[in-house]
Amino acid sequence: MKKTDLLIVGGSAAGLVVAMTARKHYPQSKILIIREDKEGQLMVPCGIPYIFGTLGATKKNVVPDATLSQNNIDLLVDKVSDIDRNSKIVTTSNGESLKYDKLALATGSIPISIPIPGINLENVFFAKKDMDYLDEMLKVFGAVKDIAIIGGGFIGLEFADEFKKNNANVTLVEVLPHCLQLVFDEDYCLLADSKLEENGINVRTNAQAEAILGKDKVEGLQLAGGEIIKVDMVFLGVGVRPNTELAQKADLRMGETRGIWTDEYGRTSDKDIFAAGDCAEKRSFFTNEPSPLKLASIATQDARIVGANLFGLKRRNGGVIGSFSTVIGDMFLGQAGLTEKAAKEAGFDYIVGEVVTFDKHPGTLPGSKEMRIKLLFEAASNEILGGQVCGGVTVGEITNIVSFLIQKRMRADEIVTLQSGTHPFSTPSPVSYPIINAAEAAVVQKN
Amino acid sequence: MKKTDLLIVGGSAAGLVVAMTARKHYPQSKILIIREDKEGQLMVPCGIPYIFGTLGATKKNVVPDATLSQNNIDLLVDKVSDIDRNSKIVTTSNGESLKYDKLALATGSIPISIPIPGINLENVFFAKKDMDYLDEMLKVFGAVKDIAIIGGGFIGLEFADEFKKNNANVTLVEVLPHCLQLVFDEDYCLLADSKLEENGINVRTNAQAEAILGKDKVEGLQLAGGEIIKVDMVFLGVGVRPNTELAQKADLRMGETRGIWTDEYGRTSDKDIFAAGDCAEKRSFFTNEPSPLKLASIATQDARIVGANLFGLKRRNGGVIGSFSTVIGDMFLGQAGLTEKAAKEAGFDYIVGEVVTFDKHPGTLPGSKEMRIKLLFEAASNEILGGQVCGGVTVGEITNIVSFLIQKRMRADEIVTLQSGTHPFSTPSPVSYPIINAAEAAVVQKN
Repeated sequence: MKKTDLLIVGGSAAGLVVAMTARKHYPQSKILIIREDKEGQLMVPCGIPYIFGTLGATKKNVVPDATLSQNNIDLLVDKVSDIDRNSKIVTTSNGESLKYDKLALATGSIPISIPIPGINLENVFFAKKDMDYLDEMLKVFGAVKDIAIIGGGFIGLEFADEFKKNNANVTLVEVLPHCLQLVFDEDYCLLADSKLEENGINVRTNAQAEAILGKDKVEGLQLAGGEIIKVDMVFLGVGVRPNTELAQKADLRMGETRGIWTDEYGRTSDKDIFAAGDCAEKRSFFTNEPSPLKLASIATQDARIVGANLFGLKRRNGGVIGSFSTVIGDMFLGQAGLTEKAAKEAGFDYIVGEVVTFDKHPGTLPGSKEMRIKLLFEAASNEILGGQVCGGVTVGEITNIVSFLIQKRMRADEIVTLQSGTHPFSTPSPVSYPIINAAEAAVVQKN
Repeated sequence: MKKTDLLIVGGSAAGLVVAMTARKHYPQSKILIIREDKEGQLMVPCGIPYIFGTLGATKKNVVPDATLSQNNIDLLVDKVSDIDRNSKIVTTSNGESLKYDKLALATGSIPISIPIPGINLENVFFAKKDMDYLDEMLKVFGAVKDIAIIGGGFIGLEFADEFKKNNANVTLVEVLPHCLQLVFDEDYCLLADSKLEENGINVRTNAQAEAILGKDKVEGLQLAGGEIIKVDMVFLGVGVRPNTELAQKADLRMGETRGIWTDEYGRTSDKDIFAAGDCAEKRSFFTNEPSPLKLASIATQDARIVGANLFGLKRRNGGVIGSFSTVIGDMFLGQAGLTEKAAKEAGFDYIVGEVVTFDKHPGTLPGSKEMRIKLLFEAASNEILGGQVCGGVTVGEITNIVSFLIQKRMRADEIVTLQSGTHPFSTPSPVSYPIINAAEAAVVQKN
């Protein structure tokens, strides 16, 4: 029987980074990834929407497998069907048996479906991280003109934006009053809603998809109330759930959000089995409560902790903050930590600091965009709780700054004396540097 | 006699932010700025090179004076000629006398000249922050074809790049072996040198300007060794010195780098007189030694400290880190904290973590650029000492992240578990997020 020191189930963001981190920390160990994606077919998860407009082909959205050989990581394309925890043996669909010393589960997540009539019709698609599936979807996409998207979260918006780049007629159906409502406060949701409309996307908020119509293939989408929208294709972006089938079969402890339970070192209820990424339950950085957050960036954070801890505990997981950015047309939006809504729900008393400036300076420079930022601080301690940002391409890194400040639990009165570097083309002006000025706006409210 | 609670001498980055910060912290106080720039003529300091290519006019590079009225800050266009510290009265060139309670000096810096023959010829220019002067320079620039720049620092490079955008023949003369050698390690200097050459700039390193030739106007530049370069205009970018004439006349204590001495609260040797920005001496964040660093972003940091401290000490200055970015063509470069060279000179034993990735993900996305980063960590404590970055437009904010991590004295082993947010168009991939992976590269070197 083959033996390996570390066996990793799943090779996407979490599995790959567990392997790469373990390779660095345990240079002598034998590391094997088992995954279902064939060689050269592993999709960049966050890049999937961009296949349908900007990239134009799945093969442009591949995680290069060269990383594996460069890091001396073995790959087996197969599906793990069972884990025998007593003998520490894994068996696969192809009948392989593999003995492990440590096992890491990185089985990811599965798109959620909704139980409405017509959900199984041809030309109904989900954001599956599978090249063959996406190639089929791309073929259909090339042949249709009218598309409905159910779900106005990040995935729905990014697909809408990309479909539109290929001149599809896109209707976005969201059951809540605004798109992105679960992750932004209303003021930022409104920015998103109007940008979508400005880009020619038919935004239907407060709208419930009731049935997908059609004989074999999609012919329409019926909303609650009876209205029928004529479409040839439906895309569902209503979220994902942890893929825990294997873990459940192995009788590992499950968490409250249906992810695999782990301790702060990434260990499951079996000390030789770790879990990382979307399949593993998260805890909130702010409240230590179970959190449903699932992001590739969180998956890699998990993986850097698990990868280092496998053969000796080195790193603790302080919980998820949630930090993400997206783009609609040329408008970038980012969020880290708690929104006002989330802060209230969690029971925090907070102060808001807000500013509007330009992302370049002077604002007369070509390509300069308005940048707005809203920061939240806990009222008593002044510690930063969250931030929302809107602007140009630098929104992603501005959001990361907010995320890092949160993790270091920085206070508004510390942030105001931070030293930023600035350049006309690359940042806002030093006079109006928005993170610092938003913190100052919060500081003086307490005076 | 007019009286004011706060009188600020100088209205650029430091003076303006002292005023804005004081307005927030002391809403009832009477604030007056005295500056020499007429209304509507205050230049954005970092924007000055961009007048000569991208912007095309000084009036597009103006700090809007509306900020003053919006913040109830009075402006007097005049020159302060004397400070009577005993009676706390300032007199101006136009004969005004003004009584102050607190005085803030934000007199900035003056471009350094070099004592070579021909330095006073027509068509020799400096980076003076003066609209009329720059308008004159712009007129001459429009009429000449061949330009020599003396000094391969940030200012020299930015002017070279912008002059070139208007199809001038540009020769850049730098006495050291590389451009930017005072602020980057050699590997990053080489990136700058080759990008300048790729953009058609004639880079002459290891070259000493010996004389500017011409009868009345510039006709050529002679290098040590005798070579003569035919040029019609010479621009000097060899640095700036603190403008301390007024402070010296008032017998305030001067620092070792010829800036005005201040304590960590921004107070000069006279407790009612503060100083901020280029005119004030800095101390190093790392060694507490006097530092010659002068940047608009440091000036605003000083100013946020001074503005809050005027009528009651609230904020301390922890010293300058130095954080800046620049661009050559489409290649951005940034640096925060110590380079390897500077770390050695300061006596630090350090570990380097380096990575190369793309600034978008997948790297096949249009506009994706290679991003490289080098981080330095103190060997015993693992605390981050500095970082150098090269890539696309997000380099400015990546550099700010490094700067903020330094100020929070973060260790490599903390940085590796930071949670970043990522998006295909806005950031590197979560798998290869460069700050985190460079820290990991340093961590595993210690194992």
